[in-house]
Amino acid sequence: MTEPKAVKSEHTRTLIVETALRLFRERGYEATTMRGIAKEAGVSVGNAYYYFGSKEELIQAYYDQLQEEHNAACRAVLDRERDFAPRLLGVLKARIDTMVPYHAFAGKFFKFAAEPTSPLNPFSAESGPSRKGAIAIYREVVDGSNLKIDSDFREELPELLWLYSMGIVLYWVHDSSPGCRKTYLLVDRTVPLVKRMVSMSRLPGFRSVTRDLVGVIRDVRA
Amino acid sequence: MTEPKAVKSEHTRTLIVETALRLFRERGYEATTMRGIAKEAGVSVGNAYYYFGSKEELIQAYYDQLQEEHNAACRAVLDRERDFAPRLLGVLKARIDTMVPYHAFAGKFFKFAAEPTSPLNPFSAESGPSRKGAIAIYREVVDGSNLKIDSDFREELPELLWLYSMGIVLYWVHDSSPGCRKTYLLVDRTVPLVKRMVSMSRLPGFRSVTRDLVGVIRDVRA
Repeated sequence: MTEPKAVKSEHTRTLIVETALRLFRERGYEATTMRGIAKEAGVSVGNAYYYFGSKEELIQAYYDQLQEEHNAACRAVLDRERDFAPRLLGVLKARIDTMVPYHAFAGKFFKFAAEPTSPLNPFSAESGPSRKGAIAIYREVVDGSNLKIDSDFREELPELLWLYSMGIVLYWVHDSSPGCRKTYLLVDRTVPLVKRMVSMSRLPGFRSVTRDLVGVIRDVRA
Repeated sequence: MTEPKAVKSEHTRTLIVETALRLFRERGYEATTMRGIAKEAGVSVGNAYYYFGSKEELIQAYYDQLQEEHNAACRAVLDRERDFAPRLLGVLKARIDTMVPYHAFAGKFFKFAAEPTSPLNPFSAESGPSRKGAIAIYREVVDGSNLKIDSDFREELPELLWLYSMGIVLYWVHDSSPGCRKTYLLVDRTVPLVKRMVSMSRLPGFRSVTRDLVGVIRDVRA
């Protein structure tokens, strides 16, 4: 019995992505060619190009897979923990865990992502869906916690936490410490600070700053 | 009488940089070649390559010139104002003013700057001197103001303000509003917030957060 066409097609696509990511890790991004990926995956070059128009398109596939792996890696801590800080810490550590195998060539990806006109840019219109997916995890961090904050701030906090996570990714890209331990340290040390600042948002004196912050975010959103 | 050699050499170098930057603005970075720069500057191609090994090296020259222009553009406000917020606002607006003419091809530069292994990366070891120069302006913003904050925090604040300015540059790169007015709005709206948070650093309850923040910065500095 042959596989249904759609299933076979999905299998081939997955096979190409997984082969590409393995070769990127093993040989580096620059040294890997579409021809090499096709050969290793056991498909024709034409078939590989049918699924991915260029090596760059495989980066979007990498992002999508990273997001899926991250979602899966966060599940346990999000289901178990009710406190905001351990939820956030778990999600950020899971994010680093899923990225670490790709550290050596993260800079190559980063270059594409940094170009403002690139669809791979996390701030671009084209990245809208994957950005929404990434922000959704931080919404779950907040909404599934016992954190008590004003509703307007609660609305904007997930995007702020995502921006914070992007800052950590930026630090990670530049982190040459063994096993990226400085990035883990950064997360360990900043999460309690973030927690304290978020909790202080309702204190007198701080409340109006929080309100202004929410106003600024809504006014300047690009 | 002929010019002394060193002076002539400096003139030629400046002429090449200014011609290159004008062509980058007029034709875009990609469309400009070393040959075209030499022709417009009225020097031989060999001479242009004597000063700059590649088009990419001209980007470092652009950064240096931007820094000089920024220093000059900040002078008036830093000499006149004693309050922290207008000093910071003036410095950030001057920074955007000097960058605006280059907005169209900022993304091209940005791509080079984003690569972690690139000497053009603002976080790289090679960028150390120009990073120090950039941070020095924010030290002057703080030290020349009547701001009252703890000495440890005062020590780290200039680097934090520089990071904040890098966030604004990141926003600016993606800003497609006419005349980059959203970036100006971002600065106008966030400087008062930064001012308030910095001022709150000595309040009870906030002081220990500030102290922790200083500790984190010192521990995780890449």
